[in-house]
Amino acid sequence: MAPRIETYDVVVIGAGPVGLLVSVCLSRWGYKIKHIDNRPVPTATGRADGIQPRTLELLQNLGLKRKIMAYDPARVHEVAFWDPAPGGKIVRTGTYPSCPSFIDARYPFTALLHQGLIERVMIDDLAKTDTHIERPATITRFETNNADPNYPVEVDLKNLDSNVTTTYRAKYLFSGEGARSFVREQLKVQIRHKDPISYVWGVMDGVLRTNFPDIKMKCTIHSEHGSIMVIPRENNMVRLYIQIASSTDPDFNPRKTATVEEVQHAAQKIFQPYTCDWDKVEWYSVYPIGQGLADKYTLDHRVFMGGDVCHTHSPKAGQGMNTAFHDAVNFAWKIHHVESGLASRSILETYESERRAVAEMLLDFDNKYAALFSKTQSGATGEEAEKANQAFVDLFKANCEFTSGFGVAYAPNIFNYSPEQSLPSLPSAIKSLIISQDKHKLRPGRVMPNSNVTRVVDANTVHLENEIPFNGSFRLFVYGGSSSSPRHGQHPLLSSLSDNLLKAGSFYSRYMHKNQQHLDTHHDSNNPHSPFFSVALTICAKRPEIEIEELPELFQAYRDRVYADDLSSPLVPNAKYASHAKVGLIPEDKGEDAEGAVVVVRPDGHLAIAVKLTEGPETVQALEAYFSQFLKHGDWDGKSGSSRDFHSKQTDTRLGGGAAYVRSLL
Amino acid sequence: MAPRIETYDVVVIGAGPVGLLVSVCLSRWGYKIKHIDNRPVPTATGRADGIQPRTLELLQNLGLKRKIMAYDPARVHEVAFWDPAPGGKIVRTGTYPSCPSFIDARYPFTALLHQGLIERVMIDDLAKTDTHIERPATITRFETNNADPNYPVEVDLKNLDSNVTTTYRAKYLFSGEGARSFVREQLKVQIRHKDPISYVWGVMDGVLRTNFPDIKMKCTIHSEHGSIMVIPRENNMVRLYIQIASSTDPDFNPRKTATVEEVQHAAQKIFQPYTCDWDKVEWYSVYPIGQGLADKYTLDHRVFMGGDVCHTHSPKAGQGMNTAFHDAVNFAWKIHHVESGLASRSILETYESERRAVAEMLLDFDNKYAALFSKTQSGATGEEAEKANQAFVDLFKANCEFTSGFGVAYAPNIFNYSPEQSLPSLPSAIKSLIISQDKHKLRPGRVMPNSNVTRVVDANTVHLENEIPFNGSFRLFVYGGSSSSPRHGQHPLLSSLSDNLLKAGSFYSRYMHKNQQHLDTHHDSNNPHSPFFSVALTICAKRPEIEIEELPELFQAYRDRVYADDLSSPLVPNAKYASHAKVGLIPEDKGEDAEGAVVVVRPDGHLAIAVKLTEGPETVQALEAYFSQFLKHGDWDGKSGSSRDFHSKQTDTRLGGGAAYVRSLL
Repeated sequence: MAPRIETYDVVVIGAGPVGLLVSVCLSRWGYKIKHIDNRPVPTATGRADGIQPRTLELLQNLGLKRKIMAYDPARVHEVAFWDPAPGGKIVRTGTYPSCPSFIDARYPFTALLHQGLIERVMIDDLAKTDTHIERPATITRFETNNADPNYPVEVDLKNLDSNVTTTYRAKYLFSGEGARSFVREQLKVQIRHKDPISYVWGVMDGVLRTNFPDIKMKCTIHSEHGSIMVIPRENNMVRLYIQIASSTDPDFNPRKTATVEEVQHAAQKIFQPYTCDWDKVEWYSVYPIGQGLADKYTLDHRVFMGGDVCHTHSPKAGQGMNTAFHDAVNFAWKIHHVESGLASRSILETYESERRAVAEMLLDFDNKYAALFSKTQSGATGEEAEKANQAFVDLFKANCEFTSGFGVAYAPNIFNYSPEQSLPSLPSAIKSLIISQDKHKLRPGRVMPNSNVTRVVDANTVHLENEIPFNGSFRLFVYGGSSSSPRHGQHPLLSSLSDNLLKAGSFYSRYMHKNQQHLDTHHDSNNPHSPFFSVALTICAKRPEIEIEELPELFQAYRDRVYADDLSSPLVPNAKYASHAKVGLIPEDKGEDAEGAVVVVRPDGHLAIAVKLTEGPETVQALEAYFSQFLKHGDWDGKSGSSRDFHSKQTDTRLGGGAAYVRSLL
Repeated sequence: MAPRIETYDVVVIGAGPVGLLVSVCLSRWGYKIKHIDNRPVPTATGRADGIQPRTLELLQNLGLKRKIMAYDPARVHEVAFWDPAPGGKIVRTGTYPSCPSFIDARYPFTALLHQGLIERVMIDDLAKTDTHIERPATITRFETNNADPNYPVEVDLKNLDSNVTTTYRAKYLFSGEGARSFVREQLKVQIRHKDPISYVWGVMDGVLRTNFPDIKMKCTIHSEHGSIMVIPRENNMVRLYIQIASSTDPDFNPRKTATVEEVQHAAQKIFQPYTCDWDKVEWYSVYPIGQGLADKYTLDHRVFMGGDVCHTHSPKAGQGMNTAFHDAVNFAWKIHHVESGLASRSILETYESERRAVAEMLLDFDNKYAALFSKTQSGATGEEAEKANQAFVDLFKANCEFTSGFGVAYAPNIFNYSPEQSLPSLPSAIKSLIISQDKHKLRPGRVMPNSNVTRVVDANTVHLENEIPFNGSFRLFVYGGSSSSPRHGQHPLLSSLSDNLLKAGSFYSRYMHKNQQHLDTHHDSNNPHSPFFSVALTICAKRPEIEIEELPELFQAYRDRVYADDLSSPLVPNAKYASHAKVGLIPEDKGEDAEGAVVVVRPDGHLAIAVKLTEGPETVQALEAYFSQFLKHGDWDGKSGSSRDFHSKQTDTRLGGGAAYVRSLL
């Protein structure tokens, strides 16, 4: 008898940021993961370290932010620009916020912490769901075949300690191997180089002894002697990036290197008139960087790639790990929706189309940025250099929204509504209920605006946009509008929404648990009805005016997700209901007349569609048309595609013990 | 030859909140601690759990808050009052903020987390300084004698596993044993019972299944069937306190008990018309509580007691652990100042006088609170009961400031200036510079008002009042005033302050490191000159206008402690410089004219004295008079009294690696 081949939902190669986050998400949702890494231990020093403002919000949504911030990362609020001055010196020519206030970020700074500590938080999280990383181990072969149609991917993994190779079968293979990827090579996927120029960079982490006044800020320093980027780090450390060679140099050699001492000497000259001595060097590396983008992120929608496997660029804008995280969550929720029987397989195509477009934007930006950084280090102090410096600063400012992560806008597709491309068959009377793109508020494909509200059950001030955790569900943010406030007695708009969502055959009720009466969801306010939808209701009233038991049926089940729009916001000081105003439901942000709406947000926090509330069935009809683009037809069979039990192993920690009381569906 | 007796700076008995925090503080400052606990493992469930708003700020100052909050405690923002209604039911009669906005707390809520998790954070912190807790072990004998004058306390500790008793010698013995204290008993210190009435309480932690709408809020419920207090907990748990017996009952028996089922049944009746079933009980206990206060906290200023050893009361106001923490820090910094040669031994007397007065206030409050809570549970629904309910709510509201921790006001003494009691010999011209008590701003004995400022070196928005960590130093918060803003060129007031503090013979320079030129304090912005003083400078200017290298000499050494007063505050919307306005340095909180001042804050965050800035030596003369009350005369010998190296084993984590670069003084 041949030995039985072990099967997994997903085999993940590489335990860097992208691979770890894929595992964290899918493990929490009950999927069985085989995860390997070819390094014997997690990252000890150096490498990626910048967590951008939007990523901090994502990490909060994942319940990981507090654990990461407990390591006390450095925080970059401003960037200082230093330029050449007469006499071979440098002088500060300006400073600019790293995430300016017009972006309205919760955390308007970049957090700097070495990659190993961030990995540790995710590895600890994985341990809670019993997913462990085998190391050192490598992938030696893979193919997609029909030997077992349920597990079409065959993978050989070799343990590098024992030298034993084992064959596994999986539903999916995910490569987060980094820039040198065996999987990508085997698939013969090409890396296209956006920019023919490539660079050699030196990077050094350590404790610097200097009288340079901006050593705790992010700085770009251009001098007659070359250029440096300064990034503050945790534990009083500093990272210096120094460009060692560019393919535009007459004697360019991509293998050019430099010793620690050479880089230190170069830094000393650039820092003039300031001193620059090293108390300690923690990490040093020299590496060539090319701007590359993979042609494809998958060939067959079974073997996928993400992170540095698909896109490489210069490290100076601190985007690498952030892009990797967003690749991971985008991949994870779509796999979940397909495997749990919610959506058709075709949605997997949007992983590549959405994430590759973002990588392309990133490379475009990096391309210009690197070229300008390079140009301004020619050593000249004349008019041309000044112009180049100004262009560099202008580019930095113009791209703040993008680099902070809030500029990422997924293009219209089945998930991201656009009046031009989507739902052509909808009657125009209903279509008119869909809130059309407003430049500053509800923009499908972007994240929804943040707002503070008061949670009714416990009177806590909370971040509404992050109240539904990253649980794989579509989020229905219901805004009651001023006519639904409790002082008006009944809630006709909310009652109608409740009735129409709970009506047999609606998209919402088709995906409800079939054995609702046997299922104990008393302690689960995120998914009381369905694993695919979470509802949060915001009401125009003061918290003590709201009695949850008086709300329509649907909302009773979401008792911990009912909020009072009773806090003021400095951005909409004249609106009575700030949360309604911040999503554009109060005209001109002033007065008391707020419209009601359902704002649909994808599981990863990007806005899908927003529809005004009506007293009839129209609101749900519009939502029905939206969801019919990708939901499977007919009733959900109530079975999940995951190999372990369906419910998350680890629910929202704010609900704590809840998970233990949710019986498995299987 | 007799075996050499092992010596320690302090022997600490008991690893509950008070003992642990004493050890954490003193271990960080290099003292050698012997710490035992008679339980084999730390607290696993239950016990104290409420962290009040002021305590959260203290924990932040200690660098422990983020680690505690990473456990996701429940947060109580409001208290709901439920009273009897006709038909044996209960009805909500009102809600009230647990820490109302007039208190202006950074964290206006109580955090609820079981004591064991809080202990774990402190035990982990101790491990970093190599202090470990021996358990299970108990104290069997102690005496103060002259066998070794450097270590006058002789202590026998018995390991309860091995049954081996060992004799140690120490400079101090600290008992944090809890209400049943061997040390207190041996010292024959009496517990005085403020209130002759005592109570038997039942307390139950677990997961409750109920439709009671306020189960995630703190509630006091009075019903015909008895009374309950509801406290939400971490992990979806609830704590119920239920009074089982009172010495005012006709058949009172202090040993009366009740089973889990009896308490659950009683709760079910009280909760009517709401359901009340238990999914899980995590902890249950019945215990008699008397309100007791120890006559003395020490007899000889060598053997000290703190926490529950000295004061017991009902648990309902959530004060126990908070009072213990403040006992601990008050004890720790005073021991440090005596043992390091800064202050005379007489300052140790203020530990008892300050902390016992707070315990007395607490017992007064608890006395009234418990009596009213008891009275309102007589079962009557008549006018008398209603009056009692109202009195209970009124008492609750009136005491919010005290229970939040911000009402604690140490009385005038050598540390807390008062025009009536202190510095009688000071010339009146100089005395007039001392800012007299202003009811709402700078009140000696209380904590200083909070404010946000921008840190100049890294443009971070920070909490000024917490920027100097709990490092055992007096904090000199220098407010530059509007005339010292950089636009006015020179800084005559700041220059004068700098010159007079650095002048030979000043209190500041007498305690400077003697080997200043050999001491490397480049990375230590908290204590660049002296272990006893930390300076923070706040300037009336925008951050980019401030160049640290242009500041007077003193402030160059504190480069990481220079701040721009350039952020607005909703509490003083009309003041140009909000941080100056919040401490009362802008008249009527409006306009641009801010006075300069030095605000002296004790190492534990309580205000000591505030003196206006002048261009002459008067400011420092006034400070000199203040410090002469307790500083030793003559020059500091530069030696510390601690057994390990003088500098903290663990400096402010925001400065990170700095500690490693500070050479030991010894």
